[in-house]
Amino acid sequence: MLAELAAFSDSDANLTRLYLSPAHRAAADRVAEWMREAGLDVGFDALGTVRGRLKPTAAGRAGNRRLLIGSHIDTVVDAGRYDGMLGVVAGILAAEELRSRSIDLPFGIDLLAFGDEEGVRFPTTLVSSSAVAGCLVPSDLDARDADGVSLRDALQAFGGDPQAAASTAYARDEALAYLEVHIEQGPVLEAEGLPLGIVTSIAGQSRFSITVTGEAGHAGTVPMTLRRDALAASAEMMLAIEDVARAGGAHQMVATVGRLAAKPGAVNVIPADVTFTLDIRADADAPRLAAIAELDARFRAIAGRRGVSVAMEKFYESPTTPCAPRLQEAFAGAARDLGLADRRLASGAGHDGHAMHHLTDVGMLFVRCRGGISHNPAEHATIDDMGLAVEALIKAVERLAADAASSGDLT
Amino acid sequence: MLAELAAFSDSDANLTRLYLSPAHRAAADRVAEWMREAGLDVGFDALGTVRGRLKPTAAGRAGNRRLLIGSHIDTVVDAGRYDGMLGVVAGILAAEELRSRSIDLPFGIDLLAFGDEEGVRFPTTLVSSSAVAGCLVPSDLDARDADGVSLRDALQAFGGDPQAAASTAYARDEALAYLEVHIEQGPVLEAEGLPLGIVTSIAGQSRFSITVTGEAGHAGTVPMTLRRDALAASAEMMLAIEDVARAGGAHQMVATVGRLAAKPGAVNVIPADVTFTLDIRADADAPRLAAIAELDARFRAIAGRRGVSVAMEKFYESPTTPCAPRLQEAFAGAARDLGLADRRLASGAGHDGHAMHHLTDVGMLFVRCRGGISHNPAEHATIDDMGLAVEALIKAVERLAADAASSGDLT
Repeated sequence: MLAELAAFSDSDANLTRLYLSPAHRAAADRVAEWMREAGLDVGFDALGTVRGRLKPTAAGRAGNRRLLIGSHIDTVVDAGRYDGMLGVVAGILAAEELRSRSIDLPFGIDLLAFGDEEGVRFPTTLVSSSAVAGCLVPSDLDARDADGVSLRDALQAFGGDPQAAASTAYARDEALAYLEVHIEQGPVLEAEGLPLGIVTSIAGQSRFSITVTGEAGHAGTVPMTLRRDALAASAEMMLAIEDVARAGGAHQMVATVGRLAAKPGAVNVIPADVTFTLDIRADADAPRLAAIAELDARFRAIAGRRGVSVAMEKFYESPTTPCAPRLQEAFAGAARDLGLADRRLASGAGHDGHAMHHLTDVGMLFVRCRGGISHNPAEHATIDDMGLAVEALIKAVERLAADAASSGDLT
Repeated sequence: MLAELAAFSDSDANLTRLYLSPAHRAAADRVAEWMREAGLDVGFDALGTVRGRLKPTAAGRAGNRRLLIGSHIDTVVDAGRYDGMLGVVAGILAAEELRSRSIDLPFGIDLLAFGDEEGVRFPTTLVSSSAVAGCLVPSDLDARDADGVSLRDALQAFGGDPQAAASTAYARDEALAYLEVHIEQGPVLEAEGLPLGIVTSIAGQSRFSITVTGEAGHAGTVPMTLRRDALAASAEMMLAIEDVARAGGAHQMVATVGRLAAKPGAVNVIPADVTFTLDIRADADAPRLAAIAELDARFRAIAGRRGVSVAMEKFYESPTTPCAPRLQEAFAGAARDLGLADRRLASGAGHDGHAMHHLTDVGMLFVRCRGGISHNPAEHATIDDMGLAVEALIKAVERLAADAASSGDLT
């Protein structure tokens, strides 16, 4: 199924499937077919999300309540075939299996195949899951792609309904929880020899542009003691960043300087101006914010000692999305049932769960991927690992069903 | 005189006077006039260097021997008016004064106004002083500027004689020594409140391109412990460079990372490839080479510890040009005569003396310049400091003349 989906691309050269593109439509149609074949009632919502519905099979107080299971079918440019699609396919296989095993379900299951997780085409992200979760920012519909096409117009061409965007959300008491299976996109599970991991939170992140201003000078004539070298100061700050992130290991803190520009940029001139980026993430907000405060202090100390100035400008921030303990426990129990380790880890990458958390509890299951590589055609997960993930998803749903049945309470 | 010279520019917007340009010719003609007014016999050599000759005025065994005094009249783009020109003007004023004071000179004096010190127009440098010193590389005449004009053709248009390039050199026994007055182009004399400094050597320098190769990765999903971050490794190497250079303070060591590029250069991707430059200089070759060896070892250790690879590629090297102790002593004695400190310092910047050292002993006198600023319109030296430099040059020549007369030996 993943191989078949990978053929739907906007590019002949590689797998590129952007939100509301013809390739997205073709992939969504195929997903809808699979859902129908699995016995689900299928439709598209106003934002182009494919929704497949499985009715409750057990008596109970479920009423209209549903367990949501999903992921996304859009991709980055030159993508792999697992990021997002695995979660959609796993949901379909799990639903089909739950039906065929005649598992008692005191709640319905809604499969969701979102379209805008990667945020590549429009300067927006999570538009489709935000609509489902009731936290869509209406002005996002006015966003335009590089060709000047608005999201609204693209949605109309896709067959969606911009007018109905606001009313596409679930009611809060309809949603029981949101579960997602996803490749890890990192190397932790592979390094530890584990096929599956239970996500504790989707890491919050902050991004800064840091500017260090010193003084240019002749590389041959200014003694080391009289320099105000912006790049040497930045080097010290970069090691401070690494140091602070390592100290936050218990919170799965990571910090990255991905971009750096030094001016004037001549081999024989002391750099006067350096700008670099900082991307910092952790499994909870408090340690991340504490680390930022510590870095701010350390940057000032370094700058003061070196006679340079430093300015930190935040240009992006998203809070941590915690994964609900009861959903972590459902996945952990499923892993134990399969004889697997109960390995908890935070997700450093963002996911649809970030939006879905506005509606309901979120639970995520990670699947080992080769070399931790993602957003790349080399992205790979084994059939065996993915099979375990589907089985774990089924078992987690069974556990949630059993809990609901025994407690008579679905929340 | 400096203000008048500053008016000869190839640009209306700023002072830019490139080798063999019309502005160079006009400035050279003005310098030749001044030399004539100072009572010198004046001519242009094959490479466009203005040469003004003052005959010996004392009986002795001087024969054809001459003390050479000079600097350059070409500039960088958007230059100051002191770098180079001060040395030429100081030579003219000193020669004029020596004549008017009827100082006994047992040797002749040749003033030299070189044309290619900055190496801006052609991919060559020190062509004119190399020709004088007999170390011209013939193929340099084939070098072309950005417009495709060869140095040979530009020389012909200037009025020079490419055919005579090889025969323009002084015979080794003609030259007694080479003296040059120059602005410091650094902040040391200003920081110590001293108008003049005696140069101990023109620093040797080595330049490297250093490539660090790690592994790209997602900024959110790769734990700190599993990273092979090429930029973090480079930051540690940059601090090692600073550390090693500081430890070489006794050798006036300076080391600069002026240029750095990190790829792929995205805010949320761990850098896989970093290239940066290293420019390292010291007052002698041995400590510079030892520092390079130490850095090589430290880079390898850092790379090994971090699981990245590192490669150092040398793309430029020039050996140290020592200043002759007897010429340092002549300037130092002159400084003492003027009630000034005997401050010795290495020149971190390159100079014509680097070429002239192939012909004869080199002595240099530095003049304090404001803020250590050079290669910039803000370049400035005070009239008082420059006057002291001219007086010190005169006294140094007198000392050399007295030594020669008393020892009966001019070497």
